[in-house]
Amino acid sequence: MTTFRSNFTTGEYLRRIDKTRAELFRLGLDAIVVSDPSNMSWLSGYDGWSFYVFQAVILTGEGEPVWWGRQMDALGARRTVFMQDDCIRGYDDAYVQNPDKHPMENLSHLLAELGLSDLRIGVEMDNYYYSAKAHRTLEKCLPQADFLDATGLVNWQRAVKSEREIEYMQRAARIVETMHAHILDVAEPGMRKNDLVAEIYAAGIRGADGFWGDYPAIVPMAPSGLDATAPHLTWDDRPMETGEATFFEIAGAHCRYQCPQSRTLFFGEVPQKYRDAEQAVLDAIASGLEQAKPGNQAQDIANAFNATLNKAGYEKDSRCGYAIGISYPPDWGERTISFRRGDETVLEPDMTFHFMPALWLDDGGLEITEPIRITETGYACFCTTPRELFVKA
Amino acid sequence: MTTFRSNFTTGEYLRRIDKTRAELFRLGLDAIVVSDPSNMSWLSGYDGWSFYVFQAVILTGEGEPVWWGRQMDALGARRTVFMQDDCIRGYDDAYVQNPDKHPMENLSHLLAELGLSDLRIGVEMDNYYYSAKAHRTLEKCLPQADFLDATGLVNWQRAVKSEREIEYMQRAARIVETMHAHILDVAEPGMRKNDLVAEIYAAGIRGADGFWGDYPAIVPMAPSGLDATAPHLTWDDRPMETGEATFFEIAGAHCRYQCPQSRTLFFGEVPQKYRDAEQAVLDAIASGLEQAKPGNQAQDIANAFNATLNKAGYEKDSRCGYAIGISYPPDWGERTISFRRGDETVLEPDMTFHFMPALWLDDGGLEITEPIRITETGYACFCTTPRELFVKA
Repeated sequence: MTTFRSNFTTGEYLRRIDKTRAELFRLGLDAIVVSDPSNMSWLSGYDGWSFYVFQAVILTGEGEPVWWGRQMDALGARRTVFMQDDCIRGYDDAYVQNPDKHPMENLSHLLAELGLSDLRIGVEMDNYYYSAKAHRTLEKCLPQADFLDATGLVNWQRAVKSEREIEYMQRAARIVETMHAHILDVAEPGMRKNDLVAEIYAAGIRGADGFWGDYPAIVPMAPSGLDATAPHLTWDDRPMETGEATFFEIAGAHCRYQCPQSRTLFFGEVPQKYRDAEQAVLDAIASGLEQAKPGNQAQDIANAFNATLNKAGYEKDSRCGYAIGISYPPDWGERTISFRRGDETVLEPDMTFHFMPALWLDDGGLEITEPIRITETGYACFCTTPRELFVKA
Repeated sequence: MTTFRSNFTTGEYLRRIDKTRAELFRLGLDAIVVSDPSNMSWLSGYDGWSFYVFQAVILTGEGEPVWWGRQMDALGARRTVFMQDDCIRGYDDAYVQNPDKHPMENLSHLLAELGLSDLRIGVEMDNYYYSAKAHRTLEKCLPQADFLDATGLVNWQRAVKSEREIEYMQRAARIVETMHAHILDVAEPGMRKNDLVAEIYAAGIRGADGFWGDYPAIVPMAPSGLDATAPHLTWDDRPMETGEATFFEIAGAHCRYQCPQSRTLFFGEVPQKYRDAEQAVLDAIASGLEQAKPGNQAQDIANAFNATLNKAGYEKDSRCGYAIGISYPPDWGERTISFRRGDETVLEPDMTFHFMPALWLDDGGLEITEPIRITETGYACFCTTPRELFVKA
């Protein structure tokens, strides 16, 4: 009776597992408890908004991984993971948000059953979905086991994308292009910001080219004027105004793959200051992209970008890009590679990034960004959205 | 130049701080590091989608709280918190998602500066935004301090709502009513699910009665047929079909206050099995609501609900309600009070809950739920959405 909803072949999941297992062996780990929903999905196919309770995929040295979570979500696991039903294990609802019981007590029994009680187990210690209390509980329940920090272990295996993953990101790219085109179409001075965000959401979820839109891992950011000096303020109902810039930091999403891209829209006559900033950013993007090729390091892009930006008299003290792919809230980045000085990761074909050179001015923000893929010889932009400051008079 | 965007008076924030501080003293804590974005917002007013990096509000025994976060988000803090600018502290971007540096190293300097190096500091050990690594880093950097688990300490102070909070929830209630009415209006067999979710999102963010819609802390859940046996699957593009039930677990939101409410829509002739389940749930809701009054315990509602449900031949093994109010992803519950056996919390006026008696059948799901407020004498439903199985022939 299980209707299997799968975004990838079982063969692809098995390749991912082999790759992850090789890294476990290399690090001398006997197993890993994967709590990051993106990593869980990448390894098993699991998909659901259930990460507000504790859940995990456990991968040992052999056999299929085990999905573990809340009993009611085991049914969602049956409908989404590639493994057989006996690899799906649920815990009783009484463990949910109950100060007297912790789900990790239940997980410790499962780990013992898997023969891991006195072995070396990797845990994602720096993840949203693995709390300090979760860790303490596991350590207490399995005192003979050695819990080691494996944050990012699976994330790093995700860096180079498969053909199918690239295809999903390309679909997400069509969606974010459509979203930007729709913004340019409907935005006007006097429009309440929430009405515009409603349009952005609807366009993104309807999708593009017949491909449905999934939820982005971050809500649309669309701050105007002074609010745009602060990068992460969300919307309210203040109407947009002539003489003001609004940046749109948004993502198209398809089958949980994210394609973020930002553009900035100015209403009215553009002040020279914004034109200067636009030119500086475009030149710096071009310099950065020249360095986007296999064999170069992630920092090469940042250094080239910053050198050109600085020459034009601007400073950006934050990273200008990060790896992207499959993601769940609260972040659409992969939390591995960053475009910033000191990141020596060597670029490889089919790595994918959001080249994100946002510039915050004293009275507003300017974001013109590009999701890119490293190719055999250089890079390809995922999107064809015009690379410029958008203006409506 | 700071334009202060505030949803509450400074007086209200100070009352919240007094209340929280009293609890700190009662527990013998000298300070608390608050990482939960809902708690941060409730104490300081801070609002932004920046919780994917480490941030906190630190409350000591005296003075204003201190907002601490990523440098670029300090500008968002200036625009949203009630405190003076010298209570806003940013850390360098190089700490962001960098395996060689942890933001908690920076926080430890701040805690030392606040004179807390060898004192008793509460931390929210079981929160999404306080990782195992964060805790270990703090303990390592401040070995003389005593870090104690204060999970839920602030959440519990939020249980009884102020007049203004109730007002925001009432606005959110108007929004979720409008969303359900819109679903009933536009949903039809053959419609792609993502197109319907696009409509739901747009209606929710446009808002109602002139009040703008904020983002819900959980995306709209709208599974049909067999997918609805699994409570947390999100949408794709499969068209809805005649003879199938779809439940809509959605929330209206305003100024981050959430009003969730679920309804179920059946296309075509309703099988007797669904009518029986509907009647059982409605009777059980009525029994539960009779117990919703000050002085009763949270479990009284669950016990009455379950007794009536069981009499009709149904079983529900998960909790049937939880506290609601202000919230950020990934959960719109307050993670304190649950309607389930054993929860002896005494109900008080202006506590607010999602009475959430979802029933999962073998071939679908039935959700008819009510957000409620405890009044001086009993309860009030936030919404006027008809309490029934929705049907479109």
